[in-house]
Amino acid sequence: MSYVRNAWYVAGWSAEFSQALTPVVIIEQALVMYRNSVGKVIALEDRCPHRLLPLSRGKRVGDDVQCGYHGMTFNAAGQCVRIPGQDNIPSTAYVSAYPVHEKNNIVFVWMGDPGKASIDDIFDLPQFGSPAWHAHQGDALHLQSHYLNVAENLVDPAHVSFVHPTTLGNAASEDVPVQVDTDGEVLVAWRWIRNAPPVGFFQKFGGFSGNVDRWHYYYLHLPCTAVIDFGSADVAAGLVEDQRDEGVRIFALHFLTPVNEHYTIDRWMHLRNAALGDEQASTQMDALFRTAFDEDKAILQAIDEAEKRPQPRRPIRLAIDKGPAVYRRRIQSLIESEIA
Amino acid sequence: MSYVRNAWYVAGWSAEFSQALTPVVIIEQALVMYRNSVGKVIALEDRCPHRLLPLSRGKRVGDDVQCGYHGMTFNAAGQCVRIPGQDNIPSTAYVSAYPVHEKNNIVFVWMGDPGKASIDDIFDLPQFGSPAWHAHQGDALHLQSHYLNVAENLVDPAHVSFVHPTTLGNAASEDVPVQVDTDGEVLVAWRWIRNAPPVGFFQKFGGFSGNVDRWHYYYLHLPCTAVIDFGSADVAAGLVEDQRDEGVRIFALHFLTPVNEHYTIDRWMHLRNAALGDEQASTQMDALFRTAFDEDKAILQAIDEAEKRPQPRRPIRLAIDKGPAVYRRRIQSLIESEIA
Amino acid sequence: MSYVRNAWYVAGWSAEFSQALTPVVIIEQALVMYRNSVGKVIALEDRCPHRLLPLSRGKRVGDDVQCGYHGMTFNAAGQCVRIPGQDNIPSTAYVSAYPVHEKNNIVFVWMGDPGKASIDDIFDLPQFGSPAWHAHQGDALHLQSHYLNVAENLVDPAHVSFVHPTTLGNAASEDVPVQVDTDGEVLVAWRWIRNAPPVGFFQKFGGFSGNVDRWHYYYLHLPCTAVIDFGSADVAAGLVEDQRDEGVRIFALHFLTPVNEHYTIDRWMHLRNAALGDEQASTQMDALFRTAFDEDKAILQAIDEAEKRPQPRRPIRLAIDKGPAVYRRRIQSLIESEIA
Repeated sequence: MSYVRNAWYVAGWSAEFSQALTPVVIIEQALVMYRNSVGKVIALEDRCPHRLLPLSRGKRVGDDVQCGYHGMTFNAAGQCVRIPGQDNIPSTAYVSAYPVHEKNNIVFVWMGDPGKASIDDIFDLPQFGSPAWHAHQGDALHLQSHYLNVAENLVDPAHVSFVHPTTLGNAASEDVPVQVDTDGEVLVAWRWIRNAPPVGFFQKFGGFSGNVDRWHYYYLHLPCTAVIDFGSADVAAGLVEDQRDEGVRIFALHFLTPVNEHYTIDRWMHLRNAALGDEQASTQMDALFRTAFDEDKAILQAIDEAEKRPQPRRPIRLAIDKGPAVYRRRIQSLIESEIA
Repeated sequence: MSYVRNAWYVAGWSAEFSQALTPVVIIEQALVMYRNSVGKVIALEDRCPHRLLPLSRGKRVGDDVQCGYHGMTFNAAGQCVRIPGQDNIPSTAYVSAYPVHEKNNIVFVWMGDPGKASIDDIFDLPQFGSPAWHAHQGDALHLQSHYLNVAENLVDPAHVSFVHPTTLGNAASEDVPVQVDTDGEVLVAWRWIRNAPPVGFFQKFGGFSGNVDRWHYYYLHLPCTAVIDFGSADVAAGLVEDQRDEGVRIFALHFLTPVNEHYTIDRWMHLRNAALGDEQASTQMDALFRTAFDEDKAILQAIDEAEKRPQPRRPIRLAIDKGPAVYRRRIQSLIESEIA
Repeated sequence: MSYVRNAWYVAGWSAEFSQALTPVVIIEQALVMYRNSVGKVIALEDRCPHRLLPLSRGKRVGDDVQCGYHGMTFNAAGQCVRIPGQDNIPSTAYVSAYPVHEKNNIVFVWMGDPGKASIDDIFDLPQFGSPAWHAHQGDALHLQSHYLNVAENLVDPAHVSFVHPTTLGNAASEDVPVQVDTDGEVLVAWRWIRNAPPVGFFQKFGGFSGNVDRWHYYYLHLPCTAVIDFGSADVAAGLVEDQRDEGVRIFALHFLTPVNEHYTIDRWMHLRNAALGDEQASTQMDALFRTAFDEDKAILQAIDEAEKRPQPRRPIRLAIDKGPAVYRRRIQSLIESEIA
């Protein structure tokens, strides 16, 4: 098993859930999810304990779920409340129920020991809800790749020049070394590219034409939520690290949902301190991100395929791998601590 | 291996076989079948003993089969009668031949020890050929599911209310307990739903509108032939078990052919004591059955998928499982007795 | 492993390679191939040693290849010459380079120990370049079959009557025994069919209508290049073996490229001593060959499928199997000698 279990994973945007039974798979666990009569999202194990039919193939009856094969019915706590044609309900007649919390229009599910679930641990960003910032939910990118490959790519500024040469990167940054800070709970990798032509994204969106100072900060929250803080400002402004809000600044958030060892969903959204309330700008940015993320997807899927083949030699490590290497070690140690 | 071998399995309706070489797979054994010059159906192992090419890719030459690769030719007993370019025919040059019998327009093949094949053991029903009954061959339903799952569903009246709520069942029967008799060679599960609205099938077909007495009898002949005897009659008639012929009575027959562990063909047909000779009624009934059996198929395929996954806990057993449980034990014991 | 490594395999016709990075798989090894600035074909291991991305997903930079993920760059010898953002290049930063040689408009790659590669060992035929002969490259047939099955079929004249009854063979040859000579390095199987109607190919192409003497010689060069020398002449000419050039004579060449255990590419071409310079004749012959080779493909794929199944009994051997049997033993002994 290569998953951290005691963690809040994103099951979907709030708009993805209604009273309809919706099947969701997170870290290889099948869930059936739905809103109850007061709108709260419920998550149950998607497997009838009798003949294993996914409950998502049955129907919602009030706030309960009725199996589509023989009508066994389970409440939101997972307890069986009805077995048609039989009065006694054995104690083994239950399905697991998962803690769910909705925040910032995102639905989070706790996949581990329910006793350890605390909503204080759910990802947040102070800019959510701030009038100086515009938040916009983008899309869900489905990748046939291991989530560690996808997450690693999100703490790796060095790939930008080569994978996204026309959108998020350009040749100016090819040889600028990456800074990495792995001391805190959140891993950070970053670099500033000073006095260089603006990349495609900021030409189109920020309206820059002359040289800019550009920054990329990659924050990786374990197990697999990434915040990419990037932006540009006129060279003349001479911004330093703390002054990023004075430039055009974007937070691109990536919520990774590992489905299985070769399938990850990356729900991405963005927050910005410019073009507030401008839906056309949101659409335009979505299009640019979509192009860039499809470039990542092609690479990450090819790597996943390559990893399945027999390897003639061990892969080599480069200086730019510090962030990814620390990330993988941390995940490994979290998984081991859960097993112990 | 999870198949009974010493049994007559259905290879197809009579109309499915002609002088053309037809490949058929039963319990993972590949057969080539064809009618010889006097119309008798032949079944041979579909594998040339030389380079393994399926003989069904060759051609029929008289009553023999010629391999499509190098022309080795086999007679209806499976013996090699020609090797082009070579005079002597080694004793290893043969393919297995299988006993075949055609009855009631159905072609049966014996898949086990030929010395144990007796045509007296082939499934029959006294209503075949009776002038008071109309027999009609329906269709072949292909399911990606284990035959034990499919067969079990055919000795399980309890699923009808939930899987077929608009066709074969309705809410009236949800809590009516199932009777089971497992004493004889044929397993029987049944229930009567008295004084209840007619189900969709009998509204459309029987023309009932007021309340009816409705019965469902599920007879399961090992290894995998099912007879579902169901019908309805006016409540006023007050029918008892032995008087079912006085109502509108249907026999739905299901001949299961296990292809492999995840693929079963269910050839179904029906006999009825009403609308004799009315082909429009047959077509109408086919359509209703097709709808209902597609509902089963969706469930049974989902269960097969679910069974492939790792199971966190053992499935639980309910009171309604008595018929299925006895059925699975009998199959297991037949298989073990064949191995011993 | 079932491949000979110390051998020249065909990577493609010359026209298949340009300055574009082209992925090629030979005996399960992934290569990236391209022409450098002076037109020489380069073959490198298609796997960046860092994150395993196939280099064929990157881009050519001058005569070098740059990885599409982080820009590591490799020269035509496979040595890393650049790691963006890092000055020192570790000795482990390399990919394997493969010897390549182009001859007769065919690109050959040596897949084994580079120290043992000698271009003297590359397949040739004296008729290439002779003004009395016309050479024409046909096509690449992709078969889902093991290369030993495909190669064996090319040293097996006996299948022609049954697999190609309307093109390359006919009933006249069904019982003519096959001669085999396995003494030399090249295996040969052949037979003459004297004074018989011409086969479809020579009716259409050679213009024969009366009886002909027809020959089929199958030469198999290890590991998997086949030359089929076949032709026809008027019976009146009374040709003997050495006089084949006096009839209408065709060489059909088959260069097999094993991709993996179940996938082989057969690049085929032909040389002829008639209709020199007549492109319409080439096209006509291509069409005839395509029909015939599709007949082989259907058989060879069915055999590959059949071999994957559990076998109830060992396959039997016939007199016609002498060539194929010796061929398989030779391959086996080559593989063993490479491992030893």
